[in-house]
Amino acid sequence: MVKAVFDNFAPDAQKDHFTIGINDDVNHTSLSWDANFSVEPESVVRAMFYGLGADGTVGANKNSIKIIGENTKNYAQGYFVYDSKKSGAMTVSHLRFGPKPIRSTYLISKANFVACHQWIFLERYDMLSSLVEGGVFLLNSPFGANEVWEKLPREVQKHLIEKRAKFYVIDAYQVARNTGMGSRMNTILQTCFFAISKVLPPEEAIEQIRQSIRYTYGRKGEEVVQKNLKAVDETLAHLHQVKVPAEVTSKIEIPAPFSAEAPKFEREVLGAIYAGHGDDIPVSAFPVDGTFPTGTAKWEKRNLALDIPVWDTKTCIQCGKCAMVCPHAVIRIKVYDSRELTGAPAAFKSADARDKEWQSKKYSIQVAPEDCTGCGICVDICPAKNKSETRLKALNMEPQPPLRYQENENWKFFLKLPELDRRDIKLTTIRQQQVQEPLFEFSGACSGCGETPYIKLVSQLFGDRAIVANATGCSSIYGGNLPTTPWSKNLDGRGPAWSNSLFEDNAEFGLGFRVSVDKQTEFARELVHRLAPTLGADFTNLLTTSSQKNEAEIYQQRERVASLKQQLVKIQSPEARQLLAVADLLVKKSIWIVGGDGWAYDIGYGGLDHVLASGLNVNLLVLDTEVYSNTGGQASKSTPRAAVAKFAAGGKPAAKKDLGLMAMSYGNVYVASVAMGAKDEHTLKAFLEAEAYDGPSIIIAYSHCIAHGINMTTAMSDQKVAVDSGQWLLYRYNPERALAGENPLTLDSRTPTKKVKDFLQQQTRFQMLTKSKPEDAKRLWQLAQHDADLRYKMYEYLAQRKPEPVPAREPQPVAEGRPDVKQEGLQTTTK
Amino acid sequence: MVKAVFDNFAPDAQKDHFTIGINDDVNHTSLSWDANFSVEPESVVRAMFYGLGADGTVGANKNSIKIIGENTKNYAQGYFVYDSKKSGAMTVSHLRFGPKPIRSTYLISKANFVACHQWIFLERYDMLSSLVEGGVFLLNSPFGANEVWEKLPREVQKHLIEKRAKFYVIDAYQVARNTGMGSRMNTILQTCFFAISKVLPPEEAIEQIRQSIRYTYGRKGEEVVQKNLKAVDETLAHLHQVKVPAEVTSKIEIPAPFSAEAPKFEREVLGAIYAGHGDDIPVSAFPVDGTFPTGTAKWEKRNLALDIPVWDTKTCIQCGKCAMVCPHAVIRIKVYDSRELTGAPAAFKSADARDKEWQSKKYSIQVAPEDCTGCGICVDICPAKNKSETRLKALNMEPQPPLRYQENENWKFFLKLPELDRRDIKLTTIRQQQVQEPLFEFSGACSGCGETPYIKLVSQLFGDRAIVANATGCSSIYGGNLPTTPWSKNLDGRGPAWSNSLFEDNAEFGLGFRVSVDKQTEFARELVHRLAPTLGADFTNLLTTSSQKNEAEIYQQRERVASLKQQLVKIQSPEARQLLAVADLLVKKSIWIVGGDGWAYDIGYGGLDHVLASGLNVNLLVLDTEVYSNTGGQASKSTPRAAVAKFAAGGKPAAKKDLGLMAMSYGNVYVASVAMGAKDEHTLKAFLEAEAYDGPSIIIAYSHCIAHGINMTTAMSDQKVAVDSGQWLLYRYNPERALAGENPLTLDSRTPTKKVKDFLQQQTRFQMLTKSKPEDAKRLWQLAQHDADLRYKMYEYLAQRKPEPVPAREPQPVAEGRPDVKQEGLQTTTK
Repeated sequence: MVKAVFDNFAPDAQKDHFTIGINDDVNHTSLSWDANFSVEPESVVRAMFYGLGADGTVGANKNSIKIIGENTKNYAQGYFVYDSKKSGAMTVSHLRFGPKPIRSTYLISKANFVACHQWIFLERYDMLSSLVEGGVFLLNSPFGANEVWEKLPREVQKHLIEKRAKFYVIDAYQVARNTGMGSRMNTILQTCFFAISKVLPPEEAIEQIRQSIRYTYGRKGEEVVQKNLKAVDETLAHLHQVKVPAEVTSKIEIPAPFSAEAPKFEREVLGAIYAGHGDDIPVSAFPVDGTFPTGTAKWEKRNLALDIPVWDTKTCIQCGKCAMVCPHAVIRIKVYDSRELTGAPAAFKSADARDKEWQSKKYSIQVAPEDCTGCGICVDICPAKNKSETRLKALNMEPQPPLRYQENENWKFFLKLPELDRRDIKLTTIRQQQVQEPLFEFSGACSGCGETPYIKLVSQLFGDRAIVANATGCSSIYGGNLPTTPWSKNLDGRGPAWSNSLFEDNAEFGLGFRVSVDKQTEFARELVHRLAPTLGADFTNLLTTSSQKNEAEIYQQRERVASLKQQLVKIQSPEARQLLAVADLLVKKSIWIVGGDGWAYDIGYGGLDHVLASGLNVNLLVLDTEVYSNTGGQASKSTPRAAVAKFAAGGKPAAKKDLGLMAMSYGNVYVASVAMGAKDEHTLKAFLEAEAYDGPSIIIAYSHCIAHGINMTTAMSDQKVAVDSGQWLLYRYNPERALAGENPLTLDSRTPTKKVKDFLQQQTRFQMLTKSKPEDAKRLWQLAQHDADLRYKMYEYLAQRKPEPVPAREPQPVAEGRPDVKQEGLQTTTK
Repeated sequence: MVKAVFDNFAPDAQKDHFTIGINDDVNHTSLSWDANFSVEPESVVRAMFYGLGADGTVGANKNSIKIIGENTKNYAQGYFVYDSKKSGAMTVSHLRFGPKPIRSTYLISKANFVACHQWIFLERYDMLSSLVEGGVFLLNSPFGANEVWEKLPREVQKHLIEKRAKFYVIDAYQVARNTGMGSRMNTILQTCFFAISKVLPPEEAIEQIRQSIRYTYGRKGEEVVQKNLKAVDETLAHLHQVKVPAEVTSKIEIPAPFSAEAPKFEREVLGAIYAGHGDDIPVSAFPVDGTFPTGTAKWEKRNLALDIPVWDTKTCIQCGKCAMVCPHAVIRIKVYDSRELTGAPAAFKSADARDKEWQSKKYSIQVAPEDCTGCGICVDICPAKNKSETRLKALNMEPQPPLRYQENENWKFFLKLPELDRRDIKLTTIRQQQVQEPLFEFSGACSGCGETPYIKLVSQLFGDRAIVANATGCSSIYGGNLPTTPWSKNLDGRGPAWSNSLFEDNAEFGLGFRVSVDKQTEFARELVHRLAPTLGADFTNLLTTSSQKNEAEIYQQRERVASLKQQLVKIQSPEARQLLAVADLLVKKSIWIVGGDGWAYDIGYGGLDHVLASGLNVNLLVLDTEVYSNTGGQASKSTPRAAVAKFAAGGKPAAKKDLGLMAMSYGNVYVASVAMGAKDEHTLKAFLEAEAYDGPSIIIAYSHCIAHGINMTTAMSDQKVAVDSGQWLLYRYNPERALAGENPLTLDSRTPTKKVKDFLQQQTRFQMLTKSKPEDAKRLWQLAQHDADLRYKMYEYLAQRKPEPVPAREPQPVAEGRPDVKQEGLQTTTK
């Protein structure tokens, strides 16, 4: 596969030398070299471990190399390679040890020991190409020693036979389940490594692992420690060597990384990067302007879910909440004419649409089985109980593997069903709105992510005309980390344009989009006017002054622009050619400036404040996880009082910064504070109002996060507790209301019915302080309650205030330039 | 003089080559060269013009060189050299023109024409050393052609004779006064240049000047244009050539730049820089660590004032307001025992002190005549009317020259009078507080500056233990631009330590002072405890735990530290040596973070916000001129609605950012908004409260500015109108009040009694829009009134709010580090 890629791009390159270094087939500046050349002494033991991001593999290996370094006479070294994807990304741990100092400041290319901690990698990565002859392959396998051979792909069998490998299997997930460890199998596989490698006497190795378990998990409580210790004890009984047969017998082929249905560039370039061969791709394969296609995450088919949701058509009330909360846009709704069901797979489900406006139409909820991460949030949020069996709902989790093929066929059929005309969808209810096609799907965000549902909502509501400036952080990583992006496009080819900028300048970056779009629109209108004699006065007028406030009006304007373009190609004038280049700018664009709290409250706040003060029509979305999530949980000014975070190990002593109040102080900024899990239609309303407001808008969106130490499946319910306890406020501040003589602030939270501690005790970030520093925790929890009381009463007070009549509102140009450098001299040489 | 300096530092250097280039007498890396070498063709006419900053010389010369370039066949070039001082700084315009393209990308060293626009420069700069033989010298002289010769210093006479110069004089100030131009003499001297140089036929030159007057001043109104035209017409009648006698006859010597009383470094290094020979100073002359002495502005003796205030002892009510508002700390008050008057100069004035607590003491107000800039603010603020002659007050402006010698003697005597013991001064009234010695004096700020009185107040109240972090801007320029600094010290050698940082990091820079001081104090206390066996338990306890909340307590702690140090030198231990180095940190320090609105509202706001959120005890002083003053008047987010500024040429469309409200949103930040001219005791109270608060404090101080286009003399009265109209609010938000169960916000402004337009129409920044865009002005002025109404009612509402009881207040450590870089790999090589 990978060779095929290279054949297309650089037919004359030396194939043997393709594995490392830039292959510059454009300027031909790269030198050829021998990839097999090695200076590593044979005495160095080299081990590679393939794990899934966050499965504990890296942590266990850091621990192993410390044990070896501290308890044996070996010198030791560890390198850990992982990309920035949140879930489904591979990690590779490279451990070296030996009797002499290790001076290899590079990754392992040939290993004595290869461990595959995730079965799904067998079909995805060619791990055994790195194994030396006679080396060990350890596989975490759901299949026992007797049956595993036939389940291996042919390529893997071939490597094992040719390399005369020692092959071990263990069902680490089963051991983990049996010992109460859930899906945590890192210490189990670590034990296997020591058992097989014998770098330490087995008893001693196990004692070291036990000690490190007590050290590592001690602060999480004795129960966690005991479970881990038990898992270690049970491991060796489940570790089995497999006799490697002499013949390749498997019928399983390693598939190409991306489906054959994917476009050529996606298959040959993005697919090669995805398969781990990105460093081999020749320079000529890359886009010259750095622009990558969107809608590419759908080719990944990561198959991460052990269980996926299954729809019960009879119980379902068609509320749309499951689609709303889904972090990965893998549960979708379509409403369509019954005739579209012709040719549907037998297992494809549909029901009569219940919404009165959709009378006589069919309704389907469909899951993308290979893209679902199995978080279960859709099931948790589902309000429809099965009356005959109350433990069931209208959605229920069931194992994915048996459903994979069938639901895949259903998914393909579902995708071909037509979308409802956007003009016919009412945006006042989740029930209807969630029929909108998401243009943000299958991101690499964590399973159960609290940020992505907000982004997906933006993509549904405004995606076909959105331009997104994304600050560094989780959202930039799952949003556009090579090789794929979840940002997508509809059948017309319309979808968000997206780019990422720095923490410290993303608000300004997005403001630049606005200024640029406005300038181009102005130029397009000017050109239309210059061509008015040809285009006609009426059409000119319609093109340049038509309202574009809703889907219907935007649809009309798009039709006009399409008609304009058809006319333009026939007009021979410089104006016509120029207008053709900017005519699309006559359709309203929606600028979104997106980032997390580290960006919005801290590092990017100076710019964010400047952009809010600009008066220009931009929409800022703050995905507020209340901590620097992407970098591992450092406190930000958004972190609430009493939360434990990095740089706030004793619990954050200060209250959360009130970013919304600060933004409101400008008076002409739309401000909303939302929490989808607490009140989804409030979230929807805020997004619609923010976008409609012709000035700066900021939405501060409560986003649950793995950094909070919560059960992600029930995280949307936690959001409700956050609002019910007053820990998080729902409100909207709409300057348009002030113009209408009303108080611009609407407090949408009700008087708290719960206590703040009801919220705090759900989350490890707060709970852990009650164990480590109970006195501090008590005091800080009291203050947290006080913060919430004060905040609620303050907002209630402000929302009750009698408004001032406003004489007029003014568009406000932004200040240009940076006036902190004084001009010190001037030279004029004129004749 | 200058040669004498170099003799001290680099006796073996080649004297002839001293004029340009770094003279590296430390590492000896510089090459010698011939300063007289020139490649300029003789055909190039070279003219140099010496002016005072803001006297119009530079503007007129830019205009002249344009006229020459556009209306003659000459090629033309202009360089303009000026430093960043606000007032009293020299500007030099270098104009070249000639028949061939000019390729001299450097300043003029030999000029055909030298013009001195300011008489005071004759005694300060050796201007004629640049004049070629037979060249022209044009002097703006208060003395006529018949009497001027005897008034010239010997050195000047010598140059004129030796160079056979053509010498012209004009009393440009007189022409300006006669034609209604006040002190604007730039077009008058420009006319002289064209008349003498004859680069254009005289009639044509004058017509060009007339045209440019219409262009330049047209928007300021026809009256200004007519005055300028009249000035031009009257010029030639007052321009006279002076026959240069054959002999030097003057008895006037050019004095050394700084007084002989100044310390050696001040005289020989700072004095040389001040005289314009900074580039010649050898490397060895500079302080190795970049630390410069404070209290050096007093050596400048700029003699800028045409008139100075004169005290009428009988009319004076001793309120202290004159000293409070003085931007340059040139009007001072002392209260002392009558016996101190022994040996007073005959003209020295004193009165019986009126304050009851100063019974039987004497009271003197004294002006530093050579440091006063003549702004007249003290006279304007003086509330005491002379009952017999109502046009007079207790202070009245009188011409400086006749008073200079007498008042200088008085000033010297005044300086020797003892200061009142700080412990005995009550800080509740301006009357007493203003007796505190200012440790910020004679800055290079503009005459009448609105910022410096606040800084001076800080220096009086806390200067003897203050550390100041100063953002770039006016305050950094007048605060510490080489060669001198107005930051000073008292007789004990105590005074503020000062440093300047960037717009974008000054708040953080100051926070670093706090963190560093706290750490050193902690270390000092730790060392005291370690030495407790030697120092004794009681003394240890007193040293480490004594309260330092007022002058008396701080005095006691200083006494203890002095005693400690005496003991330490006798103790032989590493702890004792270490403690000696940090013992002074046992006395409370006051951290001040100072800057303008460009820093606080815009470029440095991200950091300012972060520092406010830190919870640490720092004091931020925002000198709010509502515009980037230092760089020439660009709009900031502080600029109020309707003001014209650069980047807001059509009047600022947005309302002023409410920085105070944003800071208050933290709840634990002390916030005050003050305007000294409106309510001086409110200002005093705010500064005392801010400093006393053990957490972050921010004071937003209304600072009038030349950029506002106002009469600076009456600017303090304008501040009162700002508050009376509601354009500026006075308030204090003290978190300590919340702890006491009170509303933390006190609105100190009364309900507005004036309209906002009463304020706007006083200032050119607002007025000019009524001429250029009357409709826009009308709308924006309405909105400005609305802003003020809204703001007043909002604050009134917030201040009336019933407070919430607070459980406890918490010190809040700042987050450390910058957590936006993910660690991508880890190598552990252990044995």
